[in-house]
Amino acid sequence: MTESLSRRAPRRFWGWGNADAALSPREQATVNSMLAALDAPLDDRPVPQVGEFKLPAPRVAPPVALAPMFSAAPLDRLNHSAGKSWADCARMWLRQAPTPPDWVAYPDDEQAVADILDWASAAKVAVIPYGGGSSVCGGVEAAVGSGYAGAVSLDLERLNRVLEVDPVSRAARIQGGALGPELEAQLKPHGLTLRHFPQSFEFSTLGGWIVTRSGGHYATQHTHIDDFVEATRLVTPRGVLQSRRLPGSGAGPAPDRLVLGSEGTLGVLTEAWVRLQAPPRFRASAAVQFADFLQATEAVRAIAQSGLAPSNCRLLDPREALFAGVADGRRTVLVLGFESADHPLQAWMQRALELVADHGGQFDAQAVERSMAGGDEHRSGAAGAWRDAFLRMPYWRDPAVGAGVILDTFETAVTWDRFAAFYQGVKADLARAIHAATGQQSELSCRFTHVYADGPAPYFTIATRAADGSVASALAAWRDIKQAANAAVVAHGGTITHHHAVGRDHRSGYEREVDPLFRQMLAAAKQVADPHAVLNPGVLFDPAGRAVGITGALG
Amino acid sequence: MTESLSRRAPRRFWGWGNADAALSPREQATVNSMLAALDAPLDDRPVPQVGEFKLPAPRVAPPVALAPMFSAAPLDRLNHSAGKSWADCARMWLRQAPTPPDWVAYPDDEQAVADILDWASAAKVAVIPYGGGSSVCGGVEAAVGSGYAGAVSLDLERLNRVLEVDPVSRAARIQGGALGPELEAQLKPHGLTLRHFPQSFEFSTLGGWIVTRSGGHYATQHTHIDDFVEATRLVTPRGVLQSRRLPGSGAGPAPDRLVLGSEGTLGVLTEAWVRLQAPPRFRASAAVQFADFLQATEAVRAIAQSGLAPSNCRLLDPREALFAGVADGRRTVLVLGFESADHPLQAWMQRALELVADHGGQFDAQAVERSMAGGDEHRSGAAGAWRDAFLRMPYWRDPAVGAGVILDTFETAVTWDRFAAFYQGVKADLARAIHAATGQQSELSCRFTHVYADGPAPYFTIATRAADGSVASALAAWRDIKQAANAAVVAHGGTITHHHAVGRDHRSGYEREVDPLFRQMLAAAKQVADPHAVLNPGVLFDPAGRAVGITGALG
Repeated sequence: MTESLSRRAPRRFWGWGNADAALSPREQATVNSMLAALDAPLDDRPVPQVGEFKLPAPRVAPPVALAPMFSAAPLDRLNHSAGKSWADCARMWLRQAPTPPDWVAYPDDEQAVADILDWASAAKVAVIPYGGGSSVCGGVEAAVGSGYAGAVSLDLERLNRVLEVDPVSRAARIQGGALGPELEAQLKPHGLTLRHFPQSFEFSTLGGWIVTRSGGHYATQHTHIDDFVEATRLVTPRGVLQSRRLPGSGAGPAPDRLVLGSEGTLGVLTEAWVRLQAPPRFRASAAVQFADFLQATEAVRAIAQSGLAPSNCRLLDPREALFAGVADGRRTVLVLGFESADHPLQAWMQRALELVADHGGQFDAQAVERSMAGGDEHRSGAAGAWRDAFLRMPYWRDPAVGAGVILDTFETAVTWDRFAAFYQGVKADLARAIHAATGQQSELSCRFTHVYADGPAPYFTIATRAADGSVASALAAWRDIKQAANAAVVAHGGTITHHHAVGRDHRSGYEREVDPLFRQMLAAAKQVADPHAVLNPGVLFDPAGRAVGITGALG
Repeated sequence: MTESLSRRAPRRFWGWGNADAALSPREQATVNSMLAALDAPLDDRPVPQVGEFKLPAPRVAPPVALAPMFSAAPLDRLNHSAGKSWADCARMWLRQAPTPPDWVAYPDDEQAVADILDWASAAKVAVIPYGGGSSVCGGVEAAVGSGYAGAVSLDLERLNRVLEVDPVSRAARIQGGALGPELEAQLKPHGLTLRHFPQSFEFSTLGGWIVTRSGGHYATQHTHIDDFVEATRLVTPRGVLQSRRLPGSGAGPAPDRLVLGSEGTLGVLTEAWVRLQAPPRFRASAAVQFADFLQATEAVRAIAQSGLAPSNCRLLDPREALFAGVADGRRTVLVLGFESADHPLQAWMQRALELVADHGGQFDAQAVERSMAGGDEHRSGAAGAWRDAFLRMPYWRDPAVGAGVILDTFETAVTWDRFAAFYQGVKADLARAIHAATGQQSELSCRFTHVYADGPAPYFTIATRAADGSVASALAAWRDIKQAANAAVVAHGGTITHHHAVGRDHRSGYEREVDPLFRQMLAAAKQVADPHAVLNPGVLFDPAGRAVGITGALG
């Protein structure tokens, strides 16, 4: 069996996007200049090929009735052996896939999901629910340990339909395996949109968003997918867990909130009712420049506490702004935007600009006017430039990995009172850790992806390389840097993750952040739903009997 | 020991408010006209006195070291024997307190809470956490069944301080036992406010709001206290459960969301960090009249889906509007308001009024202008009249109970697509149930307390009386009507409670609404935190070995 059972366009198993993804000449030039700045060689190494990987034979056989949905094709196993973190890609460049799943299952429907869980529970086979596979924290890796007879990656790609649309309440029932573009295409004829656009939008699913508490389009107010979930349907080894479709409730602890963030450890999300929007008809956008980053954060705080609730409020420090192509490397840039399906936004933008001006922000008032005149300023201006760069960034990483350059990110949230010390502390801790791991001097860049009245969600980018320039050395350094980042964000008062999830890679921070008693309570709840502990072992919880370390381990 | 250990002004154990609460002549006239409309006699029966109740001697003795915090004073035991539902008050009029707690404990600090839980767990004594005691669903009743050696009501009144204020992030650390007015008075010198104003504001606590998922001031967007919780601290029999103070996080299922709605069954909420606001400087309000209720609901839906997010958006059907004194009994009234500490609200209100006009709403444009001119229109106009009536309504009920009139409410939330059928169905079911129970023809009134983009939170009021006019007959009828209401809201697609919590009285609906598998998972989590099942037995979960019925049982 060597043919993939996936019905989607072939993915690039060693990097981001489809197998035929390519950088534009302009993007390649950006990447080249970044590599040159790090004294890294341009990438000219041959990219990984499936035939270069030796995969062990599957250790278990699927049940006969389900066998047609099971694939042991090498491409399928490689595509499902890990997610898309920098370390996941680096290992592929090293031709290492230490823990491929024995099988990849492509269930046709919810009953098949239930049947697979029944079989797996009886046979003590680990099941790793798999949506788009875009995890950057070791969330879909089949590294389940020796306590299991085997491991199956459960790919939900065939559960990708919008099943029902309620135009009155503006909500839809959608299957968990629908990718962002798939569900938006099915909603479009109804004149509605979910408007959830994480950076992984093209290659992540509704189910993945929900179980990882994905962060989306809206920079304020409703930031996580959590706020758009009306009801969930989870297939567990103990049966279906279904919540009721409601606009709000106060009936005990909210069932959906246990599903949100469960990361495939409690069940497989097969369906959800989600809240939709009418597409925006009115827009307003501004690119505001500041001479000083911390002064700019005060402007953002004022906006976050104003109640104006901009849909976009991305603050880019000078390095981020340079990288995204919206400033010269000296100025901090705030990409500010409002959108509405209902009303013009002059009053909103006018007040927001008063607030930024009060804090020393400078902007092109005419460009702001143009953005509100119904033209395409929101596409062509700084907001548009930022959005295009945002969605393409994961593609830029592939040549960097091949060149031995660590290009990685971590993200968090912290209250405003702690932010200045947090920012300095995290940058200093990471500079030390990077120097210790690589011998390089390196400075993090920072942006705010989301902001709240009580604090921002800062997002840091690391760009560095190992002393000897090899991918293997860089991977070893990455492990040290990752653990240092986990320790730093939690020690300085942040959360281990605002919207990337915990997976395996953030476990060391998660365990410091979250009360052990809560984790015991959660484990007891899991024990009810998944009594044989077959669901995604190693994520959030230890597999029975052993601790699990960070990913990036080599075979 | 006959002296109360409470340090607060004496409460009216048989009704709402302080012992000396009284109706104004105008309020008394409103109540009298309502009683007259029901052919009920004016209330002239003598009100209950403490000495009329025979309380059994405490079955257990508190530990010596904690004894000074324990009271067996009859007034304390009566005040803590039940909450403030209609049935709770009716039983008092009948001089019945069938399950008073053996003791009322007034811990001085968090350590005392922990010590009491240690003792109770070892001695198998039930502990009922008690905030303001305003539960209207049997949430604080000491009806714990025969599986316990005794029952202690744990009153948090001495944990009522604001411990820390963070003016930068606009947040405060507040003890769980602080009543609404107590915490607002302590926040005021900092120029900040929580702005959580449930109807029970005067007699409910921050801890009570959090564990019951209270609904507050804001009619849209941020409706529940859930949205204002930054971190929680819960003392459980297994130790302290503390979450981290964060503006947002995606690190696994959210710990605070397990505390929210736990209704005293997982632990005692001793502290929380909550998000604050600057007090509003700008206001806009309008009273919009509609000829037709269902047409008015379409206007409300348009506003809820507009993104304008009014702070007030209460829709009163003709009977509610009459009762609140804002219309003539034929027109539906929408009380619409915006408020901001940051910006004038002309653009917001103007667009909202366009939407209501599109749906046939009529309003006094000059009064709206006056409301935005900085005067006191928001106090003197319909919005002010509504607010005053809203906070006083619980006081009006006391004479009605004594007169044998059932004056009760239930509330829910449902998606817009189902609303019209839900509204008709619930009203028809309840009319039948009321007729069967009382022989009376009776029509519910309805208002929306909160609205979401995907549905409203309707709130129904029942006013009827038993055929023989007695309180005892009315109480028997109430039990049948309550079960019918539970069945109706769930059968027609609503939630058993939007913001009143589950307690004992909503259990029959809760069990139909919430997936049994989720309830088993929750029970497993509780077993970890409260292994001897001493916390609030009968609420959300059965006490060991037996089912618990609705309250309103007689001794």
